[in-house]
Amino acid sequence: MTCLVGEPLPPAGRLAMVTGTPDSSPDPVAWVLRGIRSNERYVNRQERGQLTGAQQGLGRPASTCAALIPIRKTAAWWMLTQDERRAIFEEQSHHIQVGLKHLPPVARQLHHCRDLSEQEPFDFLTWFEYAPEYESAFDEMLAEMRASEEWAYVDREIDIRVVRDSYVDREIDIRVVRDS
Amino acid sequence: MTCLVGEPLPPAGRLAMVTGTPDSSPDPVAWVLRGIRSNERYVNRQERGQLTGAQQGLGRPASTCAALIPIRKTAAWWMLTQDERRAIFEEQSHHIQVGLKHLPPVARQLHHCRDLSEQEPFDFLTWFEYAPEYESAFDEMLAEMRASEEWAYVDREIDIRVVRDSYVDREIDIRVVRDS
Repeated sequence: MTCLVGEPLPPAGRLAMVTGTPDSSPDPVAWVLRGIRSNERYVNRQERGQLTGAQQGLGRPASTCAALIPIRKTAAWWMLTQDERRAIFEEQSHHIQVGLKHLPPVARQLHHCRDLSEQEPFDFLTWFEYAPEYESAFDEMLAEMRASEEWAYVDREIDIRVVRDSYVDREIDIRVVRDS
Repeated sequence: MTCLVGEPLPPAGRLAMVTGTPDSSPDPVAWVLRGIRSNERYVNRQERGQLTGAQQGLGRPASTCAALIPIRKTAAWWMLTQDERRAIFEEQSHHIQVGLKHLPPVARQLHHCRDLSEQEPFDFLTWFEYAPEYESAFDEMLAEMRASEEWAYVDREIDIRVVRDSYVDREIDIRVVRDS
């Protein structure tokens, strides 16, 4: 767990991705982050076509590495208008095109937090899955994103890397909600 | 309370707008709707300038009439890409320009519901305030909106009209959250 900017999260040894309200557990929990799958905010029709043509789903057997990257953006970002945010996101920072270069090796799912409540610690939780041999390319993708104009508006970011536990994997269910 | 499309809400005689978790009340409550103020999704910089130049805030003493209009949009709407939704919203339906014609007489606040949870009954709650003499013009604005292409994607809409209770008004606090 690497804190790139803002306040870190308490250390934790294991991570479970669960859908709905997590079951109460006898084990102590270091932290819980909540997010919701929602509609896209910036992708246009042409880009949607590129993405859906290239991307693969979560849960591929060879993708035993994953990253959970919670991000918060500044108040200045959220005060921008839609056209201004889109221009920074793609025309200046090439967020979609940078991501496209890494499809299909990287599978990705964005979760939105900002509109769950007034007190959410992050705006987005992004979950990435990839094979171990792709890790250095994945790191290069993140470095390119973090050097972009868009990232000037990120004021909290934590990079959490996990590897699949083959024993626990049979019990953890990464379910898909709100697919349409 | 007029149900225009979809399932109606149970009847209710009074409405309170509260911020945060409503206080538990000894009185029975017919229903509670939740929403959150969020960033704009379609307005561009030029339109933001037009809106902020013309609009006035909530709570004007002469604006004793209000409407709360909960709306849900179809799955087909949410599957559109951002550019497609924007084109229907403004270039085809003129949502912003129709609203602008009624500023400053109508004050407006949008609340988002869709990303609060997976089970919200509506996507948006819009609150409007206006003086009694403006009611027929307000009705014309709604009729123009409802005849637009955008409204083909509305599958639940309830039009709830209220008038200010001068006694209760001193006790109800319409507070502003997340203004920046």
